[in-house]
Amino acid sequence: MKKYCFGIDVGGTTVKCGLFDTQGTVLDKWEIPTRTENNGVNILPDVAETIGKKIQEKGLEKEEIAGVGIGIPGPVDENGDVSMAVNLHWGRVEICKKLGSMTGLPVKAGNDANVAALGEMWMGGGAGYKNVILATLGTGVGGGIIVNGKIVTGTHGAGGEIGHMHVDDNVTEACNCGNKGCLEQMTSATGIARLAREKLASTDRPSQMRNAKEVSAKTVFDAVKEGDELAKEVAEQFGKYLGTALAVMACVVDPEVFVIGGGVSKAGTVVLDYIQKYYKEYAFSACKDAVFALAQLGNDAGIYGAAKLVLED
Amino acid sequence: MKKYCFGIDVGGTTVKCGLFDTQGTVLDKWEIPTRTENNGVNILPDVAETIGKKIQEKGLEKEEIAGVGIGIPGPVDENGDVSMAVNLHWGRVEICKKLGSMTGLPVKAGNDANVAALGEMWMGGGAGYKNVILATLGTGVGGGIIVNGKIVTGTHGAGGEIGHMHVDDNVTEACNCGNKGCLEQMTSATGIARLAREKLASTDRPSQMRNAKEVSAKTVFDAVKEGDELAKEVAEQFGKYLGTALAVMACVVDPEVFVIGGGVSKAGTVVLDYIQKYYKEYAFSACKDAVFALAQLGNDAGIYGAAKLVLED
Repeated sequence: MKKYCFGIDVGGTTVKCGLFDTQGTVLDKWEIPTRTENNGVNILPDVAETIGKKIQEKGLEKEEIAGVGIGIPGPVDENGDVSMAVNLHWGRVEICKKLGSMTGLPVKAGNDANVAALGEMWMGGGAGYKNVILATLGTGVGGGIIVNGKIVTGTHGAGGEIGHMHVDDNVTEACNCGNKGCLEQMTSATGIARLAREKLASTDRPSQMRNAKEVSAKTVFDAVKEGDELAKEVAEQFGKYLGTALAVMACVVDPEVFVIGGGVSKAGTVVLDYIQKYYKEYAFSACKDAVFALAQLGNDAGIYGAAKLVLED
Repeated sequence: MKKYCFGIDVGGTTVKCGLFDTQGTVLDKWEIPTRTENNGVNILPDVAETIGKKIQEKGLEKEEIAGVGIGIPGPVDENGDVSMAVNLHWGRVEICKKLGSMTGLPVKAGNDANVAALGEMWMGGGAGYKNVILATLGTGVGGGIIVNGKIVTGTHGAGGEIGHMHVDDNVTEACNCGNKGCLEQMTSATGIARLAREKLASTDRPSQMRNAKEVSAKTVFDAVKEGDELAKEVAEQFGKYLGTALAVMACVVDPEVFVIGGGVSKAGTVVLDYIQKYYKEYAFSACKDAVFALAQLGNDAGIYGAAKLVLED
């Protein structure tokens, strides 16, 4: 009987680590630095070492450990191989095989955004559901699609790359991906700030957003909560872009719940209100009653989801 | 060892039936009328009867038969229950249980459009792939999403309802679903004809489409093949709507192949050319090399996919 599992979330600066019981309770949580030098050759050995130490520290038996799940900032294929992870300075890495032989434990790997979606499904905003779309609104827009409790990885590891859905023909600036008019350009924290700057530049109408040294997504939603009309108009723009995009996604996989995470979601349920308004307008009739929830695990979604990876069949 | 299976595709007028070997070869194919009177109470007994007769006629042993798969024009949930099928005059029907007890065989049910996608994956335009999006361009636009060889049914049976993706804010006419600006309004056979009528009304420029008694999607693509400039502009509109929509879907499930079926696809590869042009423009970089194929099974996709349903784990 397996009692424990490890969830590892590799970022460009730190590796977040968690020791979980198989019910989803986090027993310990810590971080190590991500050593990206020399093409990140130390990253997996460092992970193996910290796991080994933790096993020793806690006096665990290897037989009690279901395995190690690991989230990587890059595309991960069905076999758990990474084709490239720019932020880790990695080219192709057979991560499951390598980390497996270093730890002597079963290893499963996934893309970090997808794995975060699995974490939110397991113990966060999507708990109790098996069909989930997570939209993470941070510097960019990431996502994860869960169908029947499983991550939709996609052929090129691009399942859930919802930030790069084309949503506007009139954008002239290029997205980081090279295309123009991606969802991320409008609904990330960066995108919302851009919408706000454009709105402020387009009019002389008063707004408390004008007092901000630098307008951010937080500036916008703080102002919305104060009843600022211009900020509300920006929030409507945001809500229309994202609500419509989620309605489109519902026509593809028809989820039970949409979980909204990332820095923007810290503004709270007001964010959901603006999204849902347009979702309900544009969703296919059968899908209009989908649930909307805020993400609950914050930066820990990755370690939760990674741990859950090894508990799946 | 199972050798045979039945694939049944229930339409509003006829029930298409197929007897297959488990390798996907159709051994016999026939139709019976769909008796929709009295809330369609005879439909399942008729299906059970025709299967029974075929078993007798061919001298099959029940032990050799893997089961009966059945496609229904309505939402089918994970248990194979139908909540409603307007064209069959059905309310809620526990189809697997009922047809199972009538035939003494295992029964699996699915939505007809989804099942057609499974058929195309098994023995048609998507053969050899496990991650497929089928877009059926007929009177409406139907679809099916296959991830790792399985139909994505969705929470409300609306997985693959791609015809009702919102793609245009400027449409004032309502779609059959009640919303406005659905993909189906622009890229179904009906939608293409509408685009053509609007184009013809907007200008005095010559076009062979003007000679048609009634402009249809066939009129448009026939004219495209003759080099008709106005028809080419309509095809560009169509291609932009559908190519962009498929690019958006790729950001959700990242399929290996898009299969284009339905009456419109009979115009041939020229249809794919117009779709792919815009797909490549708007798809996320990793997904740009997805394969495009024409559907190959025509009206038989449903019986193939239904048969495949019972061969799945």
